[in-house]
Amino acid sequence: MKPSELKTGILYGVGIGPGDPELLTLKAVKILKQVDVIAVPKSKTEGESLALDIVKQAVDLSDKEILELTFPMKKEHDELIESWKEAKKQILKPLKKGRDVAFITIGDPLFYSTFIYLLEQFTIQNSQFKIKIIPGVSSINAVSAATQIPLAKAGERLAILPATYEQEKIRQTLKDFDTVVLIKVNKVMDKIISILEELDLKNNAVFVSKAGLPDEKIVTNLDSLKGKKLDYFSMVIVKKKILLLENQISKIQRF
Amino acid sequence: MKPSELKTGILYGVGIGPGDPELLTLKAVKILKQVDVIAVPKSKTEGESLALDIVKQAVDLSDKEILELTFPMKKEHDELIESWKEAKKQILKPLKKGRDVAFITIGDPLFYSTFIYLLEQFTIQNSQFKIKIIPGVSSINAVSAATQIPLAKAGERLAILPATYEQEKIRQTLKDFDTVVLIKVNKVMDKIISILEELDLKNNAVFVSKAGLPDEKIVTNLDSLKGKKLDYFSMVIVKKKILLLENQISKIQRF
Repeated sequence: MKPSELKTGILYGVGIGPGDPELLTLKAVKILKQVDVIAVPKSKTEGESLALDIVKQAVDLSDKEILELTFPMKKEHDELIESWKEAKKQILKPLKKGRDVAFITIGDPLFYSTFIYLLEQFTIQNSQFKIKIIPGVSSINAVSAATQIPLAKAGERLAILPATYEQEKIRQTLKDFDTVVLIKVNKVMDKIISILEELDLKNNAVFVSKAGLPDEKIVTNLDSLKGKKLDYFSMVIVKKKILLLENQISKIQRF
Repeated sequence: MKPSELKTGILYGVGIGPGDPELLTLKAVKILKQVDVIAVPKSKTEGESLALDIVKQAVDLSDKEILELTFPMKKEHDELIESWKEAKKQILKPLKKGRDVAFITIGDPLFYSTFIYLLEQFTIQNSQFKIKIIPGVSSINAVSAATQIPLAKAGERLAILPATYEQEKIRQTLKDFDTVVLIKVNKVMDKIISILEELDLKNNAVFVSKAGLPDEKIVTNLDSLKGKKLDYFSMVIVKKKILLLENQISKIQRF
């Protein structure tokens, strides 16, 4: 049989949810059981991948080939693109042999995920490979569930943006939208607290790190975070028309 | 035993995902198997609830009490509040008897969901009942997965808003954000097409109805929708820096 006649494998982008292994979907579990190869994004400094650790708690991976793909943490554009090209090359090997590959990502594969860059590598070259996306519960839904603060109800507007964005744009978004989720707040928390204070929104904001993970942390007194070293998986949710926020938060049950 | 000594039940807000029964999470399935009562929001005109129909495909509900809660479709504020108060009353009956209740919602319970209004009824009165939220895969993730258009990648801003919002605000949001998801476009599609045309974004927009359901529809030629009757579950995703959109969409595989 010529190589061109061989059926190529399917690449799945699988969202595994925010961290709790029980927040994998039935479809994610099915696909992970079905594929031959699990591709795992890893930073150079990381020991075991967090995503892989989560999946292992829900699915038996003992007979799977694990393809670890290492990416630099630094956002040097050229170096990153090189690492994505290399990742594509690694993934193409099993695909060309007709083996299916599931690339796992925390949260949803198309929401601030590393998978997007890989998808772009495949899209740019208009490749003939089949790609399927299994959506997952995203981190913003986990933050909302943990704090019991609704993301949006009928007629409301929701914005999500990195806290490292231009301050003036953050300020404007906070003025315009009913709910704002600021992601990656860890390195700029003091600046964010100042902006919220200035807009009189400090009491409408809640800090959440590692939402849905066993060491989840919810903080309503933002001032207590000033100058502290914060986790990479940290967000702030700001809700204009908040209903009895303190009271609500105090009632939240961990489960 | 005095009523006060009786342990009250837990109210769960359970997100069942965008429509595909396989997109329920393991936790949603576990909770639905565990509870005594399933509460189902229903509009007056609806026959069988869509949410209930989805859940039935994933979980055996034959031994459950099904509590149908009817809500008016019209957004008359007083009538709606009355219906939510009545829903709370209905749900309190089993809770007070120590029975757990799962209120099911399509998508995520705190993202444009009917559950939010019920939660508010409980929060307002600072009730002693335990409420837990099981987050779900939301419709925007389903739309993103179906079209393979990323919602946001590092450094980008995402906005979600009703297409029925003031036109000037929609225009401004489309100018400011990298990705915009317009929900409930069904009644205002012609106006949205005009705005997109004016901002030269028509080729950066994709219409999706019933994402993740068997009769999902993806339309890239928005003009073909002019004057058409559209489904209630319709959205438009607008992506500024879109990569080979047409090419990408044509490759999407239904699964």
